[in-house]
Amino acid sequence: MEAIKVFCPATIANVSCGFDVLGLALENVGDEMIVRKSSNKGISITKILGQDLPLEPSKNVAGVAALALLEKSDYSGGFEIEIHKKIKPGSGIGSSAASSAGVVWAINELLGKPFSELELVEFAMQGEKLASNVAHADNVAPAIYGGFTLVRSYEPLDVVPLPTPSELYATIIHPQIEVKTSDSRKVLKTKITLAQGIQQWGNLGGLIAGLFQSDYPLIGRSLQDHIIEPIRSILIPGYDEIKSESMKAGALGCGISGSGPSIFALSQGFEIAKKVADSMKATYEHFDIDFDVHVSSIGSEGVKIIS
Amino acid sequence: MEAIKVFCPATIANVSCGFDVLGLALENVGDEMIVRKSSNKGISITKILGQDLPLEPSKNVAGVAALALLEKSDYSGGFEIEIHKKIKPGSGIGSSAASSAGVVWAINELLGKPFSELELVEFAMQGEKLASNVAHADNVAPAIYGGFTLVRSYEPLDVVPLPTPSELYATIIHPQIEVKTSDSRKVLKTKITLAQGIQQWGNLGGLIAGLFQSDYPLIGRSLQDHIIEPIRSILIPGYDEIKSESMKAGALGCGISGSGPSIFALSQGFEIAKKVADSMKATYEHFDIDFDVHVSSIGSEGVKIIS
Repeated sequence: MEAIKVFCPATIANVSCGFDVLGLALENVGDEMIVRKSSNKGISITKILGQDLPLEPSKNVAGVAALALLEKSDYSGGFEIEIHKKIKPGSGIGSSAASSAGVVWAINELLGKPFSELELVEFAMQGEKLASNVAHADNVAPAIYGGFTLVRSYEPLDVVPLPTPSELYATIIHPQIEVKTSDSRKVLKTKITLAQGIQQWGNLGGLIAGLFQSDYPLIGRSLQDHIIEPIRSILIPGYDEIKSESMKAGALGCGISGSGPSIFALSQGFEIAKKVADSMKATYEHFDIDFDVHVSSIGSEGVKIIS
Repeated sequence: MEAIKVFCPATIANVSCGFDVLGLALENVGDEMIVRKSSNKGISITKILGQDLPLEPSKNVAGVAALALLEKSDYSGGFEIEIHKKIKPGSGIGSSAASSAGVVWAINELLGKPFSELELVEFAMQGEKLASNVAHADNVAPAIYGGFTLVRSYEPLDVVPLPTPSELYATIIHPQIEVKTSDSRKVLKTKITLAQGIQQWGNLGGLIAGLFQSDYPLIGRSLQDHIIEPIRSILIPGYDEIKSESMKAGALGCGISGSGPSIFALSQGFEIAKKVADSMKATYEHFDIDFDVHVSSIGSEGVKIIS
């Protein structure tokens, strides 16, 4: 194989109760990327459609992730990368992760899969580090493994793939204001109460048990965040209304996607997810802010071949 | 049925990463209790063998739990209770929970099961409140449901039964010094760092995924506690040595049982659990403190009928 075109999924990190550890990949929201083997050494980003992003590999998240992989590879050639960005940077649904994860997954395919999924996550994390100063894995892990993933530990890196209940759908609204991940981390307190911690790990445990058992009501009861949401939601216009209307429309739960400003809801079944989308649109039409709304099942594959 | 004799299991609460939310029941360590229907209204504790505990129902954890149940029941008679305590109070393996859970489970059987397991947990929590001033559920829930349980939330009470890998065995050493739950809670800090919280909920998520998949290495990697153990272990003589020798003997993980002083280890298979027991005995023989060591599989039933 000399060239490959891949779909690079958008991802929802944190998923309410799993701050910095949980994430999920979307089925039909994401970028596209073409990666070609080249006789020229190194990485060359030949084209970026859809966004004005740097072509210089060391300044581009996909470039940095690809270079991290190449450094560990004995492949003597290089790669050309063409990116069609559809996920807007700063949206909170893993724009940088889609590029970082997509490129290393595609290169690994072209090289005959010399690297494990865990190693691919490690390379992709270098792209995340460029984007937000923190080499977090909660977006790149689900992009690479697909479905839901738990980053149990960073040192050493330990990623646990989790099962995805088949009727689970995500609805996302992206209010087009930019919240940088680095700014969004600054507003967080560095200490929490032990009582808040207990609530949070109780809910994370419940959510994971719910995923394993396709227990939708348990998933719903567990989608709570008493630590990050009260602080970060202040940065998102209309957050409380979006949430209460989504719940009225039948969502299992609703929270901030990653560091925002996107808001996600999870629902049982496409019909309810669609109603939630309608409620989000109706709510946001009162605001003078552009927005996108997506409905997607959970992408069990993560990055995948288009052609 | 006019009378019932039940086994009331010892339980391990917290299980390293699940402070205040996780617990498990033991198969063969526990009390015995006989509960008889009586034409006299109310609760009468006729005999307590093995320990010097109050017979007056309002001062006895089993009495308080039984009274909490009776208050919600339309049964016009009462019950006589005979308790054979084998679990020492203050040991950290749920002595009060065994009595509280055992009595309400047995009465429910005698009445034809009018109450759900969740309601029984709520009654038994009243016994826990008498014992330690806190109506915690992490010991009584596994005693009633059996196996591992997660207390996802207290308000409202939400108990999630978890699967038990069949090869999992617990080894427990009880150093016979008394650590009161109420004292043991006092040494805890009321704040933790967000980073500690993230580690803890990552590990709890990993442990629960490990239980669902019978993934013993993942269970082992997840049995970590960076929040409570460093503080409470100071109260337990020889804790670090017990832990390091247990790990050398092949345990998956080792931690403080409940609020201590008992120390538990989990192992894959009886043979390793037995080796861990030998290592614990060898370690504690250097100390001038009496101790008991138990090896048990996980009790999938919790409280159960003996005759």
